[in-house]
Amino acid sequence: MGNTFGSVFRVTTFGESHGPMVGAVIDGLPGNFPLVEADIQPQLDRRRPGQSDLTTPRQESDTVQIISGTEKGLTLGSPVTLVVRNRDTRPEDYGEMRGAPRPSHADFTYMAKYGVLASSGGGRASARETVARVAAGAVAEKWLRERFGIEIVAWVQSVGDLVAPDQDVLTLTRAKVDKTLVRCPDKKAAEAMASIIREAKDAGDSIGGVVACVCRNVPAGWGDPVFEKLSGSLAGAMLSIPATRGFEFGLGFSATRMRGSAHNDPFVKKGKSLGTLTNHSGGLQGGLSNGEPVVFRVAFKPPATIGLTQNTADWGGKAGELKARGRHDPCVVPRAVPVVEGMAALVLADAAMRAAASK
Amino acid sequence: MGNTFGSVFRVTTFGESHGPMVGAVIDGLPGNFPLVEADIQPQLDRRRPGQSDLTTPRQESDTVQIISGTEKGLTLGSPVTLVVRNRDTRPEDYGEMRGAPRPSHADFTYMAKYGVLASSGGGRASARETVARVAAGAVAEKWLRERFGIEIVAWVQSVGDLVAPDQDVLTLTRAKVDKTLVRCPDKKAAEAMASIIREAKDAGDSIGGVVACVCRNVPAGWGDPVFEKLSGSLAGAMLSIPATRGFEFGLGFSATRMRGSAHNDPFVKKGKSLGTLTNHSGGLQGGLSNGEPVVFRVAFKPPATIGLTQNTADWGGKAGELKARGRHDPCVVPRAVPVVEGMAALVLADAAMRAAASK
Amino acid sequence: MGNTFGSVFRVTTFGESHGPMVGAVIDGLPGNFPLVEADIQPQLDRRRPGQSDLTTPRQESDTVQIISGTEKGLTLGSPVTLVVRNRDTRPEDYGEMRGAPRPSHADFTYMAKYGVLASSGGGRASARETVARVAAGAVAEKWLRERFGIEIVAWVQSVGDLVAPDQDVLTLTRAKVDKTLVRCPDKKAAEAMASIIREAKDAGDSIGGVVACVCRNVPAGWGDPVFEKLSGSLAGAMLSIPATRGFEFGLGFSATRMRGSAHNDPFVKKGKSLGTLTNHSGGLQGGLSNGEPVVFRVAFKPPATIGLTQNTADWGGKAGELKARGRHDPCVVPRAVPVVEGMAALVLADAAMRAAASK
Amino acid sequence: MGNTFGSVFRVTTFGESHGPMVGAVIDGLPGNFPLVEADIQPQLDRRRPGQSDLTTPRQESDTVQIISGTEKGLTLGSPVTLVVRNRDTRPEDYGEMRGAPRPSHADFTYMAKYGVLASSGGGRASARETVARVAAGAVAEKWLRERFGIEIVAWVQSVGDLVAPDQDVLTLTRAKVDKTLVRCPDKKAAEAMASIIREAKDAGDSIGGVVACVCRNVPAGWGDPVFEKLSGSLAGAMLSIPATRGFEFGLGFSATRMRGSAHNDPFVKKGKSLGTLTNHSGGLQGGLSNGEPVVFRVAFKPPATIGLTQNTADWGGKAGELKARGRHDPCVVPRAVPVVEGMAALVLADAAMRAAASK
Repeated sequence: MGNTFGSVFRVTTFGESHGPMVGAVIDGLPGNFPLVEADIQPQLDRRRPGQSDLTTPRQESDTVQIISGTEKGLTLGSPVTLVVRNRDTRPEDYGEMRGAPRPSHADFTYMAKYGVLASSGGGRASARETVARVAAGAVAEKWLRERFGIEIVAWVQSVGDLVAPDQDVLTLTRAKVDKTLVRCPDKKAAEAMASIIREAKDAGDSIGGVVACVCRNVPAGWGDPVFEKLSGSLAGAMLSIPATRGFEFGLGFSATRMRGSAHNDPFVKKGKSLGTLTNHSGGLQGGLSNGEPVVFRVAFKPPATIGLTQNTADWGGKAGELKARGRHDPCVVPRAVPVVEGMAALVLADAAMRAAASK
Repeated sequence: MGNTFGSVFRVTTFGESHGPMVGAVIDGLPGNFPLVEADIQPQLDRRRPGQSDLTTPRQESDTVQIISGTEKGLTLGSPVTLVVRNRDTRPEDYGEMRGAPRPSHADFTYMAKYGVLASSGGGRASARETVARVAAGAVAEKWLRERFGIEIVAWVQSVGDLVAPDQDVLTLTRAKVDKTLVRCPDKKAAEAMASIIREAKDAGDSIGGVVACVCRNVPAGWGDPVFEKLSGSLAGAMLSIPATRGFEFGLGFSATRMRGSAHNDPFVKKGKSLGTLTNHSGGLQGGLSNGEPVVFRVAFKPPATIGLTQNTADWGGKAGELKARGRHDPCVVPRAVPVVEGMAALVLADAAMRAAASK
Repeated sequence: MGNTFGSVFRVTTFGESHGPMVGAVIDGLPGNFPLVEADIQPQLDRRRPGQSDLTTPRQESDTVQIISGTEKGLTLGSPVTLVVRNRDTRPEDYGEMRGAPRPSHADFTYMAKYGVLASSGGGRASARETVARVAAGAVAEKWLRERFGIEIVAWVQSVGDLVAPDQDVLTLTRAKVDKTLVRCPDKKAAEAMASIIREAKDAGDSIGGVVACVCRNVPAGWGDPVFEKLSGSLAGAMLSIPATRGFEFGLGFSATRMRGSAHNDPFVKKGKSLGTLTNHSGGLQGGLSNGEPVVFRVAFKPPATIGLTQNTADWGGKAGELKARGRHDPCVVPRAVPVVEGMAALVLADAAMRAAASK
Repeated sequence: MGNTFGSVFRVTTFGESHGPMVGAVIDGLPGNFPLVEADIQPQLDRRRPGQSDLTTPRQESDTVQIISGTEKGLTLGSPVTLVVRNRDTRPEDYGEMRGAPRPSHADFTYMAKYGVLASSGGGRASARETVARVAAGAVAEKWLRERFGIEIVAWVQSVGDLVAPDQDVLTLTRAKVDKTLVRCPDKKAAEAMASIIREAKDAGDSIGGVVACVCRNVPAGWGDPVFEKLSGSLAGAMLSIPATRGFEFGLGFSATRMRGSAHNDPFVKKGKSLGTLTNHSGGLQGGLSNGEPVVFRVAFKPPATIGLTQNTADWGGKAGELKARGRHDPCVVPRAVPVVEGMAALVLADAAMRAAASK
């Protein structure tokens, strides 16, 4: 269970890290929607490993192929299936986990649940599954952009202790984000972040960070009250991404230190409707979109796989040392940027269709 | 849409703040499970308004009644329906929202979605809907406690800038939490929090805070990989609670500033299985429970309803002043404690049943 | 589980036959839709027991009450909850089932599933649960009628061996159906059916029958391919009604004896679009609506509760006799007519919203 | 939408008739379950086209490949993805549908829904999608057989007017069913059926038929009351199969002509529990399994594609003639046998897991 996302616009993903391929089945797109591989590949290129010295050295071209649901560049209304083949697999690198569960990995919990582990890498627990999220998210995003003019831009807000200055969420673009390897639009902060990552890497260690994201032009009134608020759906989606530890929108945790008179967003006339003077609510009030930019942040812990030797116990409980050999990112946030964007797109596409359903 | 929670253990809630009643239909309980109103009432008493000078003065006894699904104190396997009547309704207090949407309330977004508003209070957007969450959560919790020995305890960790010292999550009890009106188990911190709340109240203002929660004795291997990780489900559930702004588990956002070597939780022998030496992961690894206490925190913004006059615009966009009269809490966290516990119970009960399904 | 119907337009029902009430929570209606009890009551009156000598003598006014989701006769977008109180309950009539499971009732299977039985009547297995289907169906039907001009008319096609002549599905009305107690629009057949029912009743026995149904003005293109075809959804909905044994649409089982050249429906110009010359497909092709009347039939077995003494075994397996005292219908089809209409409305409302979702 | 089946044990299928492949993603299997292609292939061989002169001449080996979810012949708990490549595609055979919708096909309804058609064959409306049902069903069936000893056997009960004698549902095997090309275990009836099919084929026409099915060793108490009765789930599943027109279980439509005293199944002691003397209820009482064999029948109409010229209208409504060239079966029931078995397995696997969930 657990491999399908969404209620009306639904995505089902499959594939292990070191199996033949990973993929996604997208159900719910209308017919006659233009869709080709080139619409999807750019986001996969932003996620792909080996893109710089800040990422894992695993080399994957991550070339996407549409194997169902379109003809002549148009959707048929039937499920759109996307696959990406795994090339640079190294099963032999993971022998150590046969002896002991890797600390803070999913080895122990998957064994508790399934009584078996993929023989190489994390299997389905590997962040390689996010290839399918990014691919499906790119499809959702194209539909949201063409139908509603929605723009989704994520960026690295912090790495370790280094927090970048606030960005102008009304104008930030992916082009600007991609100007630095670390995907922080503030050049100076980006350089410092890259140094922090390289230091961790050189020390055989890893480091955490925060990805921020803005979704512009989301129409007012999306989301459903009570259990399927847009805030809850975004939180659930983001905390389903590997290595995440937290989510906040608007002013988030810092709102807890404020008084209501300072936090409330006064209404002002904007065009033919109302907007808010400030956007402390991050575009969501009562859990529904209010037309202002939806702004949120996602916390990523430092990757569990490190080069350093760790004191831990083997499967039988015997204390000992473990030194992992699997390739890994010293910091996931640069590559997490398109994953966060993809999940935001999946949430919004489902919300869009749900909103249309009971109008 | 949006009023049903859970996939196998499912709860559907209904009722507006100033309508005749609020309620919940619980579907998925086994037959022959002992269940009477007295199992549910204590948590409602902890949530009920008017319990102290720190809460809204609205007076509701919030007496729960089981109207289907049980006979002679035992469940029948059919849906268990719980209702709580609304008594102290004051529709006349909400006339001002007919003229202007209240800042940072759901008036504007609900109007955008539905084209209509409940004539009094927030209707379904009011935090009064959480009565149903608490009632249903108490049922889920009883089942979890009797079947698995699970214990769920939430407490107030911060109010405004005042952060309580860390608690011992292995031993903390509700009795200890309830020793102070503010529901912070640290007496000194609790006194300071109460002062902060009273100051805000006296100023006609409101203040935010953070609720922390621990779930003990959750068996290893609960949760489902990829999109239905326990971490994501908890995040989605918590961010569906009114006034929430953030969620984090384990070390949360502070993990983003750490290196992997410091963050990883080494395994150690515990009983017949493995546990972890530290619990930086908050009991969840790869999104599944690992047997350690599940620990998370939820950020609550300051309530939007304040006594102070606010500059804002009316429905037509005309700038003006708004002064709300509806009764409200100056700070929601003391009463949010059982709501957080209730939602945690709903997530865990569904996870428990899903885990049993495909064993 | 199992008490919620629909994916986007969702109905959750609750309540046992001899408990305080039965009810339904409807989630997914838009806001501002006019809805009052008087919109619902007529269909409940057609279903209610005690309406003639052909039905059970149990007396229930079955007065519906809306307890959430509307204000001033308009929906709020929040869940609409309907309740109908049980009045004429006679728990003492069901003592016999404590000793032995009633043949062809749900006593044995419910005990196998839940390990407990409602102490009186069938509890949730009683056909009394269909009150909630009819009430919710009336709401769905009103929305379908006002939004799309959809008309749903069911009637009794056969009782025992007596099959009524085919009806003109383009013009048949409920008024015409209701001209006879048995709800067969052919007066002569209706009289014969009534005689068959009275004979069975007088013999302390029961008899089966078939209900037919037409849904007019269903737009072309509703339903979803593969697993959620409109044909499958209707079949699933109808076979969830108590006492049903079969479903067929269009020519149904008799189509199995035909050649394709005779069965195929040729297309002809109708208005600005295409229609079919014949309607052997019952308005559904490839599982989707084609704009022609949707026509189907539902088989109802004879009620299991009969006055005659039956040879059977007790719970321990000891052979013996059983004589039931619970009140019952000698034939369910006259009262099943609004139940079939109600379920058809629930299926179509969900299909309508799903169709709107991904346009 | 519509391409996912099941709530806990879930199958998502994809692929068009003349695209590169068809496939299924199975989510919900436990880990460590033995599964290889050879477990699946036999049922695909029974479904595959070109197996005799009674079926379409399209030649497909329909070789299944597992591309995710297993390692070394064991499931990992992650989604099991099955693909079958399409080989013998002939896009040029379908030019005629560009000019006119084929009578009683899905061309018209798909165009109404999606505004586009697959350029060859029925795309997703083609019965080729049932490859994925059979493949996934074979997996479900293996799990049901090994876990519960469940046996599922379907057979051809009638072709046109020719109805085979009743079979002994307690002992019938697939081996016996497969002794004749037409898959009717009664040799004499099978010969007559084959003649009827060949006559229709020689006349450029097609013919309908009925498939019957028995599921043995289904434990008592499976299925969920009210909307998810096993009877409703089976009906919904069967009526989602292309070309189906009806479903009945137990005595089905013929029960409508009976009195309750004749129809009721008396209980008798069987082993340590109760069984029924007769099985008029087809193993389902109150919608739940009672431990007796689950018996049902599915009506299949004559295939819409025939060689004869048909009078119909083109897309613009202009009357004219249409002569189809696409290859087709003169009668679908011989090949529908494994499809019915597959869908029964999917229903039962989901019911099994749901039953385990809330025990």
